[in-house]
Amino acid sequence: MRYTFNLKTLLLAALVAVPFTFGNLNAQEAAPAAAPAAAEAEPEAGPVDDYLELVESSGAEFAPAFDFFTVSMLWTVIAAAMVFIMHLGFATLEVGLTQSKNTVNILFKNSFIIAIGIVSYALIGFNTHYPGDFNGWLSIGAPIGDLNADGGDGWGYGGLALAMTGYGDFIFQAMFAATAATIVSGAVAERIKLPAFMIFATLLVGLAYPIVGSWHWGGGWMGGLNGGNGFKDFAGSAVVHAFGGFAALACVILLGARKGKYTKDGIKPILGHSMPLAAVGVFLLFFGWFGFNGGSVLSAAPGPLGLVFTTTALAACTGALGAILVSWIVLKKPDLSMTLNGFLAGLVGITANADIVSPSGAMMIGLIAGIIVVFSVLFFDKIRIDDPVGAISVHGVCGVWGILAAAIFEVVGEGDEKQFFLGGQLLGVLAVGLAAFVFSFVVFLILKLTIGVRVSDEEEHEGLDVAEHGAPAYHIQ
Amino acid sequence: MRYTFNLKTLLLAALVAVPFTFGNLNAQEAAPAAAPAAAEAEPEAGPVDDYLELVESSGAEFAPAFDFFTVSMLWTVIAAAMVFIMHLGFATLEVGLTQSKNTVNILFKNSFIIAIGIVSYALIGFNTHYPGDFNGWLSIGAPIGDLNADGGDGWGYGGLALAMTGYGDFIFQAMFAATAATIVSGAVAERIKLPAFMIFATLLVGLAYPIVGSWHWGGGWMGGLNGGNGFKDFAGSAVVHAFGGFAALACVILLGARKGKYTKDGIKPILGHSMPLAAVGVFLLFFGWFGFNGGSVLSAAPGPLGLVFTTTALAACTGALGAILVSWIVLKKPDLSMTLNGFLAGLVGITANADIVSPSGAMMIGLIAGIIVVFSVLFFDKIRIDDPVGAISVHGVCGVWGILAAAIFEVVGEGDEKQFFLGGQLLGVLAVGLAAFVFSFVVFLILKLTIGVRVSDEEEHEGLDVAEHGAPAYHIQ
Amino acid sequence: MRYTFNLKTLLLAALVAVPFTFGNLNAQEAAPAAAPAAAEAEPEAGPVDDYLELVESSGAEFAPAFDFFTVSMLWTVIAAAMVFIMHLGFATLEVGLTQSKNTVNILFKNSFIIAIGIVSYALIGFNTHYPGDFNGWLSIGAPIGDLNADGGDGWGYGGLALAMTGYGDFIFQAMFAATAATIVSGAVAERIKLPAFMIFATLLVGLAYPIVGSWHWGGGWMGGLNGGNGFKDFAGSAVVHAFGGFAALACVILLGARKGKYTKDGIKPILGHSMPLAAVGVFLLFFGWFGFNGGSVLSAAPGPLGLVFTTTALAACTGALGAILVSWIVLKKPDLSMTLNGFLAGLVGITANADIVSPSGAMMIGLIAGIIVVFSVLFFDKIRIDDPVGAISVHGVCGVWGILAAAIFEVVGEGDEKQFFLGGQLLGVLAVGLAAFVFSFVVFLILKLTIGVRVSDEEEHEGLDVAEHGAPAYHIQ
Repeated sequence: MRYTFNLKTLLLAALVAVPFTFGNLNAQEAAPAAAPAAAEAEPEAGPVDDYLELVESSGAEFAPAFDFFTVSMLWTVIAAAMVFIMHLGFATLEVGLTQSKNTVNILFKNSFIIAIGIVSYALIGFNTHYPGDFNGWLSIGAPIGDLNADGGDGWGYGGLALAMTGYGDFIFQAMFAATAATIVSGAVAERIKLPAFMIFATLLVGLAYPIVGSWHWGGGWMGGLNGGNGFKDFAGSAVVHAFGGFAALACVILLGARKGKYTKDGIKPILGHSMPLAAVGVFLLFFGWFGFNGGSVLSAAPGPLGLVFTTTALAACTGALGAILVSWIVLKKPDLSMTLNGFLAGLVGITANADIVSPSGAMMIGLIAGIIVVFSVLFFDKIRIDDPVGAISVHGVCGVWGILAAAIFEVVGEGDEKQFFLGGQLLGVLAVGLAAFVFSFVVFLILKLTIGVRVSDEEEHEGLDVAEHGAPAYHIQ
Repeated sequence: MRYTFNLKTLLLAALVAVPFTFGNLNAQEAAPAAAPAAAEAEPEAGPVDDYLELVESSGAEFAPAFDFFTVSMLWTVIAAAMVFIMHLGFATLEVGLTQSKNTVNILFKNSFIIAIGIVSYALIGFNTHYPGDFNGWLSIGAPIGDLNADGGDGWGYGGLALAMTGYGDFIFQAMFAATAATIVSGAVAERIKLPAFMIFATLLVGLAYPIVGSWHWGGGWMGGLNGGNGFKDFAGSAVVHAFGGFAALACVILLGARKGKYTKDGIKPILGHSMPLAAVGVFLLFFGWFGFNGGSVLSAAPGPLGLVFTTTALAACTGALGAILVSWIVLKKPDLSMTLNGFLAGLVGITANADIVSPSGAMMIGLIAGIIVVFSVLFFDKIRIDDPVGAISVHGVCGVWGILAAAIFEVVGEGDEKQFFLGGQLLGVLAVGLAAFVFSFVVFLILKLTIGVRVSDEEEHEGLDVAEHGAPAYHIQ
Repeated sequence: MRYTFNLKTLLLAALVAVPFTFGNLNAQEAAPAAAPAAAEAEPEAGPVDDYLELVESSGAEFAPAFDFFTVSMLWTVIAAAMVFIMHLGFATLEVGLTQSKNTVNILFKNSFIIAIGIVSYALIGFNTHYPGDFNGWLSIGAPIGDLNADGGDGWGYGGLALAMTGYGDFIFQAMFAATAATIVSGAVAERIKLPAFMIFATLLVGLAYPIVGSWHWGGGWMGGLNGGNGFKDFAGSAVVHAFGGFAALACVILLGARKGKYTKDGIKPILGHSMPLAAVGVFLLFFGWFGFNGGSVLSAAPGPLGLVFTTTALAACTGALGAILVSWIVLKKPDLSMTLNGFLAGLVGITANADIVSPSGAMMIGLIAGIIVVFSVLFFDKIRIDDPVGAISVHGVCGVWGILAAAIFEVVGEGDEKQFFLGGQLLGVLAVGLAAFVFSFVVFLILKLTIGVRVSDEEEHEGLDVAEHGAPAYHIQ
């Protein structure tokens, strides 16, 4: 009834359109299907021809270089997509390990983090992270421009010295940037005030992360550590994970524990509401870590690539086995959430050194990380640092372990001329952790003293979903 | 007890088999592990040797061309797999945003769509989509044959002018085809009759989609638009998304709203039953979109690839930020489902132009899309077009926006000699939208007048899972 | 209050650190961002330079070989990551199709399987699977060492005859290994005793799987089948899927059905508790199968790669359509779990032959698999073999079908000189199935007679989550 008028008009339009559309029926008996997939009508050379032209204009001896560049760049963007999926892993893990009444809030936070993380990285982070020639400590960057513009004929703004274009470099690093804030998100879940978190996360990911990262990856002062061999942190046990873990620690100290967790009768566990979501999260993180560590090879060089995939997987698996073993002994039962954190502990532990250790080294690093994480989670609970997902232990403590492991385990492969010293590694990771802690403490304290960082007791009891977002996460009809 | 006899027989068999199996124990001290992974017993050259033979037989100067072809083809099939995962994203998003009593039905619909979508694309769609030389409007294709057969020594049926083999072309495009029907699925959820949907989806994906697609990607009449520069729709804002969105609009008009949604007391929201599933859906769609847009580069050319990944991610993120901002102002709360639709709005908006805009252009396109989608969802609700997942707004409205944006924002990179005009873009997207609308309206009307398109009120109230499938989706024991 | 002292100390530290951190502010107007992404402070050549050096030292004529090697190796590790995600698919499918009270247990089992699977494959499996020159039946391997060590300049331990490095070979195959145990996990779910499963899975994945696998992929006795043409099992319909399916059958026979499933009043279905999780599982398995089959090309050769992606997708889709059709006729309703198993049936069916059949052959193979699986599931239920997820039918029965299909359907492409005979194929798959069955039966029987394989009736009734793990999977607050 409501659409009577529309119906008439539309039917009329249809009557006009039908012959227009179907009038030229010209069924083919055997279609050749020879047209390129997205030919835009004008005749033009295909991408292979364009490529050959490029090679010819550069001199044929460059052909292998361009081929290697092309495949390396492809790997970079695929790895970026894999790191992106880690954000889904973080979100579902955090949701799974917390109460159902705070689910919408957590999903909102994680959506915001990836959005603001990538945007702020374009506006300020990338050029702060990689400032080029600078004083080694601080240089605030401008927004990115057209990164293909300065690539010239050779694609990369780094020329053939860097096996990716500027955009490849940007998007891969942008996916990393949001990770730090995501780590914090898990630790402060279920009681943080949304605006406070949004402001804090923006500053952390847009400012603090790239500044601290520039010390290592941006060519900063850490190059002088370890007797000039540089600070070894392959894919970011320190500058991503420990950074996030220590930032989380500062926030949790200021924020306090969830109501009812620590009572005078002892610790009252607050169980996660969906273990399948938690497991989905960890498996997606494991998957994405192949992009996180594998992409950090920064090229498709087959030797390092295979080693990194292998050490990453082995450390994750021994991490889980270590956590299973220890938690079974200590907690007297095979604990799933400890097992899941064991995978992550192994992954964080191998992140600093995946390109220089042997399979047996990787297995040891993961195993020890899996053992550490169980005791660390129990320890922080004992001192009443309430971290619903164990982020401080997984990323902070095991991040430190990964950095130290780079100096402990025998170096294999191309890196074997190098030697990393425990002292330099320790100094580096402490500097990163301290910077993250201090920055977070100061910013979060200011937020606490101004707009407040914690929801009211009523809101916490009701759950943030209804209190802050006006809608629950689940309706089973 | 039941297996006494079997047990005896099998144990006997075991006793015979054990020495057979373990008798030849021949422990190696240090295994060389030199055998290729799937050597099929006969001695044969490895794939690298085969490859060198091909290069030699073609003349060594073709080596870079073949290398580029190989890496481009690899990217094409990986991108196809990533687009496949979008179908899981669509399924979980639709499930999450609807009522739990219709979950089995939605999962069944989405399983059917991907199955019939790929099969019909092989049987008729592919050669209809890419008819080669035709009248520009309509050519119905035959089933695909052995697409490697006509590849000759040079792999591709397009020779080196197309950086993928025929099968690569097919599988990538097949993954796209099912998308259109999936978009409709979301809009008609919770009240459509299953057989009607199955027939409609089959005709839409097998017939209408490739015909309309051939106008643009198949070398059809759209090449003459925009002053001969062709219609700019990089990866399908129009021919995939707006097509699906306008098809959905036609169906929803004929189908009517869900019972109880629009009452005389105003709009009564029907909440989704699982926000984690909705969020999983959107994150998987975001991930898959890197394959959707990135794969549409149609090669592994590093310059465009990095640009497309970057613009795609930036538009998605500003889309979310735009939706957060506007929904917070308009709805007075930070709305998660609007945020999620904001990501998708940005992604649809950038799909037409991801290869020609700058990072700042991409951020603007996404931001505007994120703002548009909030108002569009509210608008369709106001005029009582009941679209449970917002598909018409996300894919239809933002699809149009993406097409227009291709003519509005400054062109960068290789495309900068080109100019696209608003008029031509508008004409093209309206033609696509109108064709989708008219086709869908006519077919759905015929279904309505014959087998019926809507379940009974009782079935709708009970839920389609039990009513049509005989089983609920959830059992919590 | 609790942190008063800490607060003071930390604020002091912050006051010291702030000028230290921000003192050197040196804002850039237009950041050049020229530094390579992970420059470790010292000036060094980039990866492209390293690559050119390698090419130069090998003779320039090797350039295309190295390029092909590099892209093939990249595909191998990406495929490994995709196969990894299948384990998440298996986990969520199994969880979805079983009762909520056993969810933690299933997630724990699947976490353990992937962990022990990869670790045991490094410690013994890989060198058992690929023993090099051996008696064709049995050779127990040593742990892997540094697989890059013997790669020399040419990356691969197989030289250029194998398009991947040793680590690439290892990690891809390691992801396969855990699959067999995962298949069993689904069939024995909801009543198996955890320690018994853990021991059984370890022996199956660490010992039985690589031994049986060596018969085919390790250069063993199966090379003599089919008149010397070898046993055709492209990616493992027999040596992975039928192996797992027949191992599962043995375990289920010894374990017995779940309480209350088979009563004197007939079969009482035990419904799965979450169809969305089941669907997520199947879609992830479908996605991962592109890596499973596509990676089994063992290079990035474009011809086979495109064919395998296409045949894999087509068989999966016709499998679903076949299962929809038959289940609708037989069960009188469109059954979602049969549809989902139809996808998997098609995928298992195509796994043996994806590289040699045409698209129409693939569609037939999948369709028949989808029909078979429905009747097979009903059959096993009728003879009271209680398999909660249908693993015996999907992997065992359809695995046999896939092997036979390799001899039935016309061979296309490069393999067309070859001919596989039904007799040889049948003999091979029966040998694999029998070995899996006998091994599993003997080991599981010993476990049954010693530590016991089944939980008590009380534990089964209460659910394994609380009984064995002390925590339920869900808490809806």
